[in-house]
Amino acid sequence: MKAENQVAIHPLAQFAGTLQWSQVPAAVQRKAEDLWVDWFGSVLAGQNARPVHSIARFALSQGPAQGPCEVIGQSATTSPMMAALANAAAAHVAEQDDVHNGSVFHPAAVVFPPALAVAQSLGASGAQLMAACVAGYEVGIRVGEFLGRSHYKIFHTTGTAGTLAAAAAVGNLLGLTPAQMQHALGSAGTQAAGLWEFLRTAADSKQLHTAHAASAGLMAAYLAQDGFTGAQDIFTGPQGLAAGMSTDANPARLTDGLGTRWATAETSFKWHASCRHTHPAADALLQVMQRDGVQIGDIAQVICHVHQGAIDVLGPVTSPATVHQSKFSMGTVLALAARFGHAGLTEFDEQYLAADTVALRNKVTMALDPEVDAAYPQRWIGKVTVQTTDGRTLHGRVDEPKGDPGNTLSRQEITDKALRLAAYGSQVPAAQVQQAVQQLWQVAQWPRVARLLA
Amino acid sequence: MKAENQVAIHPLAQFAGTLQWSQVPAAVQRKAEDLWVDWFGSVLAGQNARPVHSIARFALSQGPAQGPCEVIGQSATTSPMMAALANAAAAHVAEQDDVHNGSVFHPAAVVFPPALAVAQSLGASGAQLMAACVAGYEVGIRVGEFLGRSHYKIFHTTGTAGTLAAAAAVGNLLGLTPAQMQHALGSAGTQAAGLWEFLRTAADSKQLHTAHAASAGLMAAYLAQDGFTGAQDIFTGPQGLAAGMSTDANPARLTDGLGTRWATAETSFKWHASCRHTHPAADALLQVMQRDGVQIGDIAQVICHVHQGAIDVLGPVTSPATVHQSKFSMGTVLALAARFGHAGLTEFDEQYLAADTVALRNKVTMALDPEVDAAYPQRWIGKVTVQTTDGRTLHGRVDEPKGDPGNTLSRQEITDKALRLAAYGSQVPAAQVQQAVQQLWQVAQWPRVARLLA
Repeated sequence: MKAENQVAIHPLAQFAGTLQWSQVPAAVQRKAEDLWVDWFGSVLAGQNARPVHSIARFALSQGPAQGPCEVIGQSATTSPMMAALANAAAAHVAEQDDVHNGSVFHPAAVVFPPALAVAQSLGASGAQLMAACVAGYEVGIRVGEFLGRSHYKIFHTTGTAGTLAAAAAVGNLLGLTPAQMQHALGSAGTQAAGLWEFLRTAADSKQLHTAHAASAGLMAAYLAQDGFTGAQDIFTGPQGLAAGMSTDANPARLTDGLGTRWATAETSFKWHASCRHTHPAADALLQVMQRDGVQIGDIAQVICHVHQGAIDVLGPVTSPATVHQSKFSMGTVLALAARFGHAGLTEFDEQYLAADTVALRNKVTMALDPEVDAAYPQRWIGKVTVQTTDGRTLHGRVDEPKGDPGNTLSRQEITDKALRLAAYGSQVPAAQVQQAVQQLWQVAQWPRVARLLA
Repeated sequence: MKAENQVAIHPLAQFAGTLQWSQVPAAVQRKAEDLWVDWFGSVLAGQNARPVHSIARFALSQGPAQGPCEVIGQSATTSPMMAALANAAAAHVAEQDDVHNGSVFHPAAVVFPPALAVAQSLGASGAQLMAACVAGYEVGIRVGEFLGRSHYKIFHTTGTAGTLAAAAAVGNLLGLTPAQMQHALGSAGTQAAGLWEFLRTAADSKQLHTAHAASAGLMAAYLAQDGFTGAQDIFTGPQGLAAGMSTDANPARLTDGLGTRWATAETSFKWHASCRHTHPAADALLQVMQRDGVQIGDIAQVICHVHQGAIDVLGPVTSPATVHQSKFSMGTVLALAARFGHAGLTEFDEQYLAADTVALRNKVTMALDPEVDAAYPQRWIGKVTVQTTDGRTLHGRVDEPKGDPGNTLSRQEITDKALRLAAYGSQVPAAQVQQAVQQLWQVAQWPRVARLLA
């Protein structure tokens, strides 16, 4: 391969192609297992959503009548690509899947589904699966950081960077050489897509973005294994990702601390069932209410002091028309948090248009805050100013919202969250889910990845 | 659907959702049949290329063991998505498939494969298939024109606009309502992808771009039929295609003459087996050689006066390392045209690195020409200045390269070209191809679309 010898292997391709579970520090291994269990709950939570049914139906109609790969929560089995399509669509519905703050990227939804499907197809071990997933996290997060804030203004980073994350994870499982991994990343990057425009009418595209990223990235890796070549500098080449889809790309982020800084461990769990941009302010409001004894009836006005990204994503949603859209409404999220102590899936479903919610929602505004904006996306600071009906002005501030690495969930909290999500969204019997979750914690010891739901 | 009633149906969705064969003027019907036969040759020409084999192998491995859809030139059958993947990959290999000048978009490769697969799956009539394909051409070309020159500098328009073209064609066949078609276009647009970066190392991405566009667009249409929603203004919304991927988008182009101006009829056939950007200059050089009796040995220097797009795409290719890359080398194309009278597939394969080719190649340069650039992309003017070894300065100029609507191919030339391409690229017996091509000319009379190669 003449062209190949002329081109340097990108450290990210080298890393993703060669990472093994034994090279991952123990604390990062445990965090990866946490993320894995947390992801499983999100898949079951989304499994019966209408858009997920559509994608799963399509995937099963285009694939084989049966195959080595599980469509989670269904008896059907299929091929790796089709399982990745269906499971990735499900993972991102409930808005409870994980997020990496610095990249504003949701890794679980686009990494675990294609990796699981391929691991089931290959009969890989649990350690091989998890190493591949860590490779996917490390690549996807760095690509998201690289593409920067200008990218996220228009593009759904989980869809775009997610395509490369999926390729990295699948490529690691397939045992690609670093040169092949570089081709896989090129083929993934040239399929990277996902526009935020769907938010304006609460359309179903979010599920399509994760499904597309998982399947396109999977295809890129399989093709590379078969000798199919891709762009050698898909990141910073003059007609590559940064040139086409970012105005503030930072190439240094692609390799930042590779092998020493574990971005996987920086990933946050989501506690409220809403867009992550709403969480810091919700936690800050709860702080004010608890600390100062403020009741709902006392609240005259809430100003959320936010970063620009929150305004870009949440600003258009002033009067949510669907449950999904309400998860992007800052006012709705704060109203539910204030009314119920947290904004969970059930609260959204049953209360997002309740008169008490709407009344409080309409008292909430957002304002750009220079300090919060400067800290973002490395830190997601929550700052609110609450005006009370009796004339008090109260300030709330949370530096790490619940679920962030410095304020993380315990394994018991993760298990409970997964069981709650499964009960919310699937018909799988609780005992079966419970047994599966117990098994999932042991993933690194599995000699062979079998069905998650037996 | 509350959100749906609030949103106006875009005229493009209305048009694509409702177009019928009987509404297409007879001359446009005949042109569509010309393009259909011309496409068939290109698929067979590319069928055995290594990157196409990779994509076809992957597609067949992920699909059912058999299905209603033909992988052209193979005995295997599969599902619509997988057939679309494989056939679209093949159509764009030989660089002989059609092109629409104004949009710099290759419609056949991304329109016919998904439409054929779905027509075979549904048992649609030939007229239904062809109406769907005209819908795909009209939508894809207008989207390409809309995205403009800034888009094409970074993005492979056939990959991006092609995703919407495929969705329009498949959606028409599926009988989507205009509202459903609007959702399909939204879901297609949010998957639109394809970066030119692969050209720098002659990577295989071009085949991936057409395969991806065909399959992603097909998925978007099937999902819309199942109630899956997409962005309502994927074109000009603040986080839509134009916002993310163009700086000179022109919304008026989306609906320009819809129903009266037939962009399908403006599509050009490719005569030389190279990037279309090389054709005008090659024809102009041939003009000089024929008119002024210039022999190869007389040529001291050739300056091609070109539009900026030619410099953007061809400029990086100074020393082609592969046959594919040589088709993007202006010098190589002109050298082969000068040596053999045309730059065909066989000439590229056997002569692109021959000493005589390289010697002449190195005498060719490009220069931006204001007149040519201003006319582009509506007209692709070829202008060359030839310096001869005996001191003459000769000028060549071609206003419509061979294959353009004003200088088109006859049905006999199209048949001959298809048979030549099939003989070049496939092992299908010539008699069988000949019989198939005869049948293809009758497509509009077919009661039911069956296998193209019986």
